[in-house]
Amino acid sequence: MTADTLPSAFVSGKRLQAKHEVMARYGATAAGGVNRQALSAEDVQALKQMIQWGQEIGLAASRDLAGNFFLRLDGQNNTCAPVLSGSHLDSQPTGGKYDGVYGVLATLEALQAIQASGQVPRRPIVLVAWMNEEGSRFAPGMAGSAAFAGARNLEDVRSAHDTDGITAGEALDWVRDQLPELPECPLGFDIFSYVEAHIEQGPILERENKPIGIVTGIQGKYTYRVTVTGTAAHAGTSLRAERRDALLATTAIIQALAQALHDDQDIVKFTVGRLNVEPNAPSVVAQKVVFSIDLRHPDTEKLHRLAALIPKICRSHATPCDVHIEQLSCAESTIFDPSIRTIIEQTANHLGISHRQLISAAGHDARYAAMMAPAGMIFIPCHLGITHNEKEFVTQHDMECGAKVLADTLFELANR
Amino acid sequence: MTADTLPSAFVSGKRLQAKHEVMARYGATAAGGVNRQALSAEDVQALKQMIQWGQEIGLAASRDLAGNFFLRLDGQNNTCAPVLSGSHLDSQPTGGKYDGVYGVLATLEALQAIQASGQVPRRPIVLVAWMNEEGSRFAPGMAGSAAFAGARNLEDVRSAHDTDGITAGEALDWVRDQLPELPECPLGFDIFSYVEAHIEQGPILERENKPIGIVTGIQGKYTYRVTVTGTAAHAGTSLRAERRDALLATTAIIQALAQALHDDQDIVKFTVGRLNVEPNAPSVVAQKVVFSIDLRHPDTEKLHRLAALIPKICRSHATPCDVHIEQLSCAESTIFDPSIRTIIEQTANHLGISHRQLISAAGHDARYAAMMAPAGMIFIPCHLGITHNEKEFVTQHDMECGAKVLADTLFELANR
Repeated sequence: MTADTLPSAFVSGKRLQAKHEVMARYGATAAGGVNRQALSAEDVQALKQMIQWGQEIGLAASRDLAGNFFLRLDGQNNTCAPVLSGSHLDSQPTGGKYDGVYGVLATLEALQAIQASGQVPRRPIVLVAWMNEEGSRFAPGMAGSAAFAGARNLEDVRSAHDTDGITAGEALDWVRDQLPELPECPLGFDIFSYVEAHIEQGPILERENKPIGIVTGIQGKYTYRVTVTGTAAHAGTSLRAERRDALLATTAIIQALAQALHDDQDIVKFTVGRLNVEPNAPSVVAQKVVFSIDLRHPDTEKLHRLAALIPKICRSHATPCDVHIEQLSCAESTIFDPSIRTIIEQTANHLGISHRQLISAAGHDARYAAMMAPAGMIFIPCHLGITHNEKEFVTQHDMECGAKVLADTLFELANR
Repeated sequence: MTADTLPSAFVSGKRLQAKHEVMARYGATAAGGVNRQALSAEDVQALKQMIQWGQEIGLAASRDLAGNFFLRLDGQNNTCAPVLSGSHLDSQPTGGKYDGVYGVLATLEALQAIQASGQVPRRPIVLVAWMNEEGSRFAPGMAGSAAFAGARNLEDVRSAHDTDGITAGEALDWVRDQLPELPECPLGFDIFSYVEAHIEQGPILERENKPIGIVTGIQGKYTYRVTVTGTAAHAGTSLRAERRDALLATTAIIQALAQALHDDQDIVKFTVGRLNVEPNAPSVVAQKVVFSIDLRHPDTEKLHRLAALIPKICRSHATPCDVHIEQLSCAESTIFDPSIRTIIEQTANHLGISHRQLISAAGHDARYAAMMAPAGMIFIPCHLGITHNEKEFVTQHDMECGAKVLADTLFELANR
């Protein structure tokens, strides 16, 4: 097969860029970013747009019980397990236009290119938009892919609640009611392989001027919810010595954690990103503080050893308050199947696109898909590595390179 | 005049207690406390109840442009400046049944007792329920009394906004629309003197078994809003060395402040009670943190010296983030007029009720009323000093003692 009959020849970076601009309207923020949290009204708008784009090129849409969304391109033999490819449409509260969305739209572009090449692959190829990858509204994230892979059961996913007390189950049912025409399918099906395109969310590819990153794996990530309980008291009358100030204890805990988890190599990633105080009034000593911990390390053993410090440090710095530590998720490092890495590498070489291997510092749905079938990821550069930020930026050129490599990779896999 | 013709003889602790139970329904919390924040629907319910109680004994109700509420008992000469007495009906988000409410209902009980004694004092006596003493919804507090005394202008009071972005001005207009029959009067009028009854909010009176505290003054209080600005970033990919984590910087600032403001005598009161994080998502490095500082000390000079440390400490611990410190209020210590203290003391002696002098560790509307006329406060014990807490508790006996001393004090002042 010559290069101009490969699907990549029919990929349009301009069309792909235009789709990103349309998608960015759903949840657009004043600062040019996106706030499209899982199962929100904006998320529904994004799904409706996907359904419409699918209809325009004859792809059948469906949605499973965990809220994962699918568009299917038939193969020659539709009894074969499909190749699955995609990412997520939900964003952080102050997210950008590319994180997640790129992987979904690059797959859509790849399917359109395969159609345009006039060829029908042996296996079906299914586009997926996973439900709630970010976990900012319903913690923990990657909920849809975890449920699909059987790593979490549906009831557990449905029981998570947002800060307004709405459960993910209620929100899932609400989204279903907004999309009454969309067929609902059972949760989980056999897949032949999985490929996810995503922005790097780090600075390496841009710095080395390489449009393609072949992802070797994903660093491990443990998450926690810590509750510090003290006693509400009057800011003017209660004696310091008698106070049980939940916020003061929390600041001591976080400082101690940051110190204990500090490494000179800057490999450990320790973040407290969410913190809520009760009653949160200026002249009342805090009664309760709930905060999140996000801890990551590419070395599973090292991660495990660092994680073991967390309960000890929380307890020893909580005095005179009480502390309760709850582990929300515990993902070891993932190593992607070498066969998928090889196909991506050969495809990029064939297209003459510069590439390198790297490990993903961020978690992705591919972590769970990799439990079901050989899986891999294709990274493209993002400017200065800025992400989870309204300033996130990706060039049209790099988007096109990623979609080309994805299109030919999916076509190759679907013909196996 | 013999003791049984004094108004105090007609004070009923049982009736006063019953009124507290009724009032506690408006904003009742599951844990037995009260959440009745300023200018809320619950606050309106409380005002409607006050209007009804006033009507039952023929007291004319009105409300000024700052939302302060009045009930007027006519005197023999209504051209004389009135004696003003009361406190506030708003509570902290997790407040108790007595803070503020007691002073309002004790005044109502006193007015009813004066009527029942069959005597008409020379001057009118006006009950006041000040708008937004707590400042938990619209910071800073004591907004109504500050506006009444001219210490803050009305536009400034109206421009404060709650966490939903509603301004105090909008909320004031909304409350006015809920009470269309209530006459609105201009802001501020001459007063002859001011007396406020309140729970102690400290443990001293209970410990010494003294039902009455004669308040000598109010310790000074400075409040601040501190904004720490960093950069949102991905919790998995951004390097620690390159992060500008607003929450981590904030914990360092608060720890450093607590250390610098520590005194072995436990006189300094330093509290961070409110703290809000943006975007407040578990896997996003915090972009912005806004927190409150409440600093109090009975010695104005010492308070001033401690306050001067705050900007320095915030700045030196904010690195690599930016910090902005805004002083919201700056109240020096207040010393109450000795003439009012003497009348309260003589009244308590006359009634044979045990008492002692003390300084108020908490701020009160009397701070502003004292700028307009001789002012004083009567404290009653509160169990274990627990306040700004749903467990706040006061005995019926102590409520009655306070109302008796208040009734005779107001009667004495109104005859001068």
